[in-house]
Amino acid sequence: MVSKSQIKLIKSLSQKKHRLRERLFIVEGIKGVKEFLSSDFQLYALFGPEILALVDHRNFYEASSAELSKMSSLTTAPEYLAVFRMPDEVPISENGLKVVLDGVRDPGNLGTIIRLCDWFGISDLICSRDTVDCYNNKVVQASMGSLSRINMVYVDLLKFISESQSVPVYGTLLEGSDIYRTKLESEGFIIFGNEANGISSEVQKVINHKISIPQYGKEKNTESLNVATATAITLAEFRRQEFIGK
Amino acid sequence: MVSKSQIKLIKSLSQKKHRLRERLFIVEGIKGVKEFLSSDFQLYALFGPEILALVDHRNFYEASSAELSKMSSLTTAPEYLAVFRMPDEVPISENGLKVVLDGVRDPGNLGTIIRLCDWFGISDLICSRDTVDCYNNKVVQASMGSLSRINMVYVDLLKFISESQSVPVYGTLLEGSDIYRTKLESEGFIIFGNEANGISSEVQKVINHKISIPQYGKEKNTESLNVATATAITLAEFRRQEFIGK
Repeated sequence: MVSKSQIKLIKSLSQKKHRLRERLFIVEGIKGVKEFLSSDFQLYALFGPEILALVDHRNFYEASSAELSKMSSLTTAPEYLAVFRMPDEVPISENGLKVVLDGVRDPGNLGTIIRLCDWFGISDLICSRDTVDCYNNKVVQASMGSLSRINMVYVDLLKFISESQSVPVYGTLLEGSDIYRTKLESEGFIIFGNEANGISSEVQKVINHKISIPQYGKEKNTESLNVATATAITLAEFRRQEFIGK
Repeated sequence: MVSKSQIKLIKSLSQKKHRLRERLFIVEGIKGVKEFLSSDFQLYALFGPEILALVDHRNFYEASSAELSKMSSLTTAPEYLAVFRMPDEVPISENGLKVVLDGVRDPGNLGTIIRLCDWFGISDLICSRDTVDCYNNKVVQASMGSLSRINMVYVDLLKFISESQSVPVYGTLLEGSDIYRTKLESEGFIIFGNEANGISSEVQKVINHKISIPQYGKEKNTESLNVATATAITLAEFRRQEFIGK
């Protein structure tokens, strides 16, 4: 049985200001819920037909599909919906490649990029403060559980990168050098920009390695790649050079 | 001024059966409309504040933003909405790489893949009959005009590939050989599968080169890449080997 105040709380979490105030976010669907349960994230409440492994009975609320429909943001209500506590930000790892996003706005793109970081073993994803919130329902959904394994930090990018000296700062720009003809390091930041405007001019100033994905289409008509597909191709090439060699 | 029957026709085109009966589809937004106007596609009707270059006055209807709101499938109505005639299918080119989709269902994924084909100079995109319709409003929107430059064909995949002998048929499968350690040809078919189930077992039988994208994430937790990001990484590697060498 789900109380009215619980339904109210859960519906309020579709808004960023309420998520930040409560420090809670929603995960929908059995697959995602299980991935978060087996991570370091702390469960606040689980709603569904029956209790799951790793869940304390005090956090479980039996919910009918009608009740889940009321709480869900999806067209088809999930069998399980869980509320987790937002983790505290942890310091980013000292070594390795880090992906940096400057103003990515589309939740689907951020979710896909989180999944790509997970696939390519990138543990830290550093976002500008105007990048879409990673606890947005659509981002959580699109990340397919990968969010539970990536350290997400929201910072003032300029300040953050300026203070992290002595590592390469790669930025994907149309006028950059062909990534396939550039020796890519296995250390540093790789910056990707906003869907419409790319990397902001201030952030461009801290880039010391401009790179680009060559276009092999005959007529050069396509303006640009989607930011998530550009991230996919770029990360694949960084890892190829690291593991297979240039 | 837009007539009621025009609004009714345009709204009906959000359904595949009506698009197929009328052989018409919708393009929304100035950027997409202009790309289709400068392509070989035939304009049926243009709605907007004023006539555009390349448009015959008989095909132009002045439309207010209120009228455009009624016709549009978007949350924010576009300034221009156009209806184009579906082209007849043209035979696919004899040479080069061809992308083949087996049951891709998500309109955003198909739109992204069309854009990727355009970027990587792949002129033919061959889809199984259960792949989402490329004239679906969301696909047209996500393809960002690239649809006007790609030859789309919907076929019985098994029959089609079996009859196209003597070229490599690549398929992306989890158990395939590492694409970075495989010599990739600049000729043949590359098959990508459905979001949830991958390539169907019947279509798997015609694959003669199983390939896969290596996972460099430390813990191997991510189940799979999204089909559009897998297409991005795979096409980039085919072109890298062709233009830069293995």
